[in-house]
Amino acid sequence: MTPPSSSASDNHTASGGAPIGVTGLAVMGANIARNFARHGHTVAVHNRSFGRTQALISDHGSEGNFVATKTIAEFVASLATPRRALIMVQAGAATDAVIEELAAEMEPGDIIIDGGNALYTDTRRREAALRERGIHFVGCGISGGEEGALNGPSIMPGGSRESYTHVGPLLESVAAVVDDTPCCTYIGPDGAGHYVKMVHNGIEYADMQLIGEAYQLLTGVLGYTPAQCAEVFAEWNKGVLESYLIDITADVLAQVDAETGAPLIDVILDATGQKGTGRWTVKSALDLGVPVTGIAEAVFARAVSGSRELREAAHGLPGGELATTLQEALPNIDEATFLADIHAALYASKVVAYAQGFNQLTAGSVEYGWDLKPGDLATIWRGGCIIRAQFLGRIREAYAANPDLPSLLLDPYFSDAVAASTTSWRRVVVAATSVGVAVPGFSSALAYYDSIRADRLPAALLQGLRDYFGAHTYERIDKPGHFHTLWGGDRSEIRTD
Amino acid sequence: MTPPSSSASDNHTASGGAPIGVTGLAVMGANIARNFARHGHTVAVHNRSFGRTQALISDHGSEGNFVATKTIAEFVASLATPRRALIMVQAGAATDAVIEELAAEMEPGDIIIDGGNALYTDTRRREAALRERGIHFVGCGISGGEEGALNGPSIMPGGSRESYTHVGPLLESVAAVVDDTPCCTYIGPDGAGHYVKMVHNGIEYADMQLIGEAYQLLTGVLGYTPAQCAEVFAEWNKGVLESYLIDITADVLAQVDAETGAPLIDVILDATGQKGTGRWTVKSALDLGVPVTGIAEAVFARAVSGSRELREAAHGLPGGELATTLQEALPNIDEATFLADIHAALYASKVVAYAQGFNQLTAGSVEYGWDLKPGDLATIWRGGCIIRAQFLGRIREAYAANPDLPSLLLDPYFSDAVAASTTSWRRVVVAATSVGVAVPGFSSALAYYDSIRADRLPAALLQGLRDYFGAHTYERIDKPGHFHTLWGGDRSEIRTD
Repeated sequence: MTPPSSSASDNHTASGGAPIGVTGLAVMGANIARNFARHGHTVAVHNRSFGRTQALISDHGSEGNFVATKTIAEFVASLATPRRALIMVQAGAATDAVIEELAAEMEPGDIIIDGGNALYTDTRRREAALRERGIHFVGCGISGGEEGALNGPSIMPGGSRESYTHVGPLLESVAAVVDDTPCCTYIGPDGAGHYVKMVHNGIEYADMQLIGEAYQLLTGVLGYTPAQCAEVFAEWNKGVLESYLIDITADVLAQVDAETGAPLIDVILDATGQKGTGRWTVKSALDLGVPVTGIAEAVFARAVSGSRELREAAHGLPGGELATTLQEALPNIDEATFLADIHAALYASKVVAYAQGFNQLTAGSVEYGWDLKPGDLATIWRGGCIIRAQFLGRIREAYAANPDLPSLLLDPYFSDAVAASTTSWRRVVVAATSVGVAVPGFSSALAYYDSIRADRLPAALLQGLRDYFGAHTYERIDKPGHFHTLWGGDRSEIRTD
Repeated sequence: MTPPSSSASDNHTASGGAPIGVTGLAVMGANIARNFARHGHTVAVHNRSFGRTQALISDHGSEGNFVATKTIAEFVASLATPRRALIMVQAGAATDAVIEELAAEMEPGDIIIDGGNALYTDTRRREAALRERGIHFVGCGISGGEEGALNGPSIMPGGSRESYTHVGPLLESVAAVVDDTPCCTYIGPDGAGHYVKMVHNGIEYADMQLIGEAYQLLTGVLGYTPAQCAEVFAEWNKGVLESYLIDITADVLAQVDAETGAPLIDVILDATGQKGTGRWTVKSALDLGVPVTGIAEAVFARAVSGSRELREAAHGLPGGELATTLQEALPNIDEATFLADIHAALYASKVVAYAQGFNQLTAGSVEYGWDLKPGDLATIWRGGCIIRAQFLGRIREAYAANPDLPSLLLDPYFSDAVAASTTSWRRVVVAATSVGVAVPGFSSALAYYDSIRADRLPAALLQGLRDYFGAHTYERIDKPGHFHTLWGGDRSEIRTD
């Protein structure tokens, strides 16, 4: 797969002194370039339109050493060898185009880093193609939004181990730091970094959905105002739920709309967008056969929220509610208890969502031969990224104690925490179901928990039905083999293997 | 994309007298060949190993006119022009191989029909490639299992309209018939037939999961034996739930294991297999942004059931149940009422699952330009296929009354039926949640219903959070445009478009 004319061997591309370059200077790219500069690294910067490059230099040039370049050739020539070019452009065709331009100017041994939200299968394809040309390709998940990019994101670089020796120290130097440990580590070969980032985002979807359901119960069942809800979340942020998302939830709920004087949350349209990583996560989980019900329900809940025509038409369909108040739904439960119940339900559902997400990471690792270390991922997610939380320190400890943990729900700390929450969790689902507040995240997480711990599942009946209409056979609990009942005949059973 | 040497124009392939041929004579292929023969059509038959062909002739040759052929060339030569060859082999590479062999022997105008469970994107690819060679490709969903293939399946042929003029009458003649209407009709271009069959299977997954949950409640909450459950399902099969799956559920639950004397259901291992179409359905729905929570929960429930290591380790985790009996869970509800409640919950959840599946069909139709007619699909699913049911007649009527129905839940018949079920449905989810029986299908269906009819969804909070950490912007309920709050600044709001 050598390209028709390999500029790498023909032209001796000049090299400069910048240890890192960033091409694509929208907010994320500009911020990460500034982050490098602030940490003392000379940063070559490039953007398709030079105006953005100039703006960066004029606004922030004093923060460190920037090398402004006008063309890709100039950009590549300004980099020290092995050249390290970080792409911060839109995932998809734009990324492919920039990769091609860079590769045409680079030499074997150089390194292209894709810091966008690429689909891991694209990353696998790109890495394989560039490897043929002797160029390292580092598919690199970066989480933390604009603010994280500037002040320290969580960084998930994949690719060859050799490439990490060249890019690891640089990336670690700009990553968030928790307990003196940078939130950046080598993830694994080819698409591993982007895969891990994708599942991170999937977990983020679930996390946000659960927070949303808790909010819905605080308002819908307890009748709290957004300001009161903000106080609840601020309080919760002092305990086991302490996390960036809970913290900013309090902020968002406390915000007052300047124009109307109403809580901002009440004037925001309740239709959620999505950019694809949640959907990708669920699709991969389906292929791997890993149940990620929490992420799936979150992705679908977003789709429901955006179904404006359907919602308008369905608005006001009768609910047949069993209760309209907490008192009616749960006669012996007072407000304080139910408030604690919501906290417990949120926590337990969150453990389930993370347990499912980590199981997907493990399964993906086996499928693609990545040798992912779940504990390392928890470690680098403790800071910088959107799901950063105290909680991830516990996950890190769980995998340190048992790297082969089949589920977080089986770690002693988490199983105790969930066990202590189960009664509350059930009361919350019961109350929500009774009053007609949708809690797809809470209820599917509880169903998952009840399924994995069940003696027997209705799967036996499904196997019977599948054998009946499709001769799919079934196994028995009392002996090995596959069996088929002659349903259309004398209904005797035959062994089929 | 003409192949290097086109045998179609070079050799003048001979033609015979068979109006239809079937290649691939495993049970499904053999049965559909017999079905053609029984309806008076001469059927050319072919199988990779001739032994199967011989067995078919010797066992069933007296049922009609078969033309046994040893090679693909002989098979194609035995067909009347335009030649019609039905492939009944495994989806995937095996199908591609047979298509190539057939096409090499065929002439422009001939027709290849793929009756396997192909992924619709493969069908689109194959149809486009064969169209270039002048050969019609009919991706044809066939449902009904072995028995349906023999006695009348539901048939979903896609491809060009012209191809349907050649294959439609033949296929209609062997399809199931309901109210004098054959369960076969032209579906739409390229992959439409296989897409529709895929969603049919997805709905089938949901349907079976819901039946399984009803069974679980009959045993787990009402304490019924399998034999008693069989009677319940047999009774339900006389009412609005009348369907093939409910019918055979009664049969399966009544079956006694000859070896142990126990109900067969109790000795079947409760781990469900899957062959891919459920998973494909959910993946496509994710791409289309259509919430199919019922199908997704069913697919994941199968995955959970098959997670043996996890289930073994999680078995016996504490449940924190709120109740152990119906009396404790729902103090004022007697057994008969709760039995009726389960029926209502099953029915309402089924309406949701079908509503979601039909919405996916509509969205897929728009995406691929298929012009699917939901009412036609309901019509041909009334008989022959696994989800055949009285219920589908109601769906047919709903779309006849309003072809642009945004959801089955908004059709007067179904909205009344669901409205009449809501209180029962809630009680079932409350009871299941209280006693710790997992009902992911029932509860996610109810959450979907409560979501689409809700005044406000937590999506507003999610938009606020997304704007906070990622500047994703939000819309407002009171004016058009996209807005961003300067969360890291003075928290004023700016319009971004």
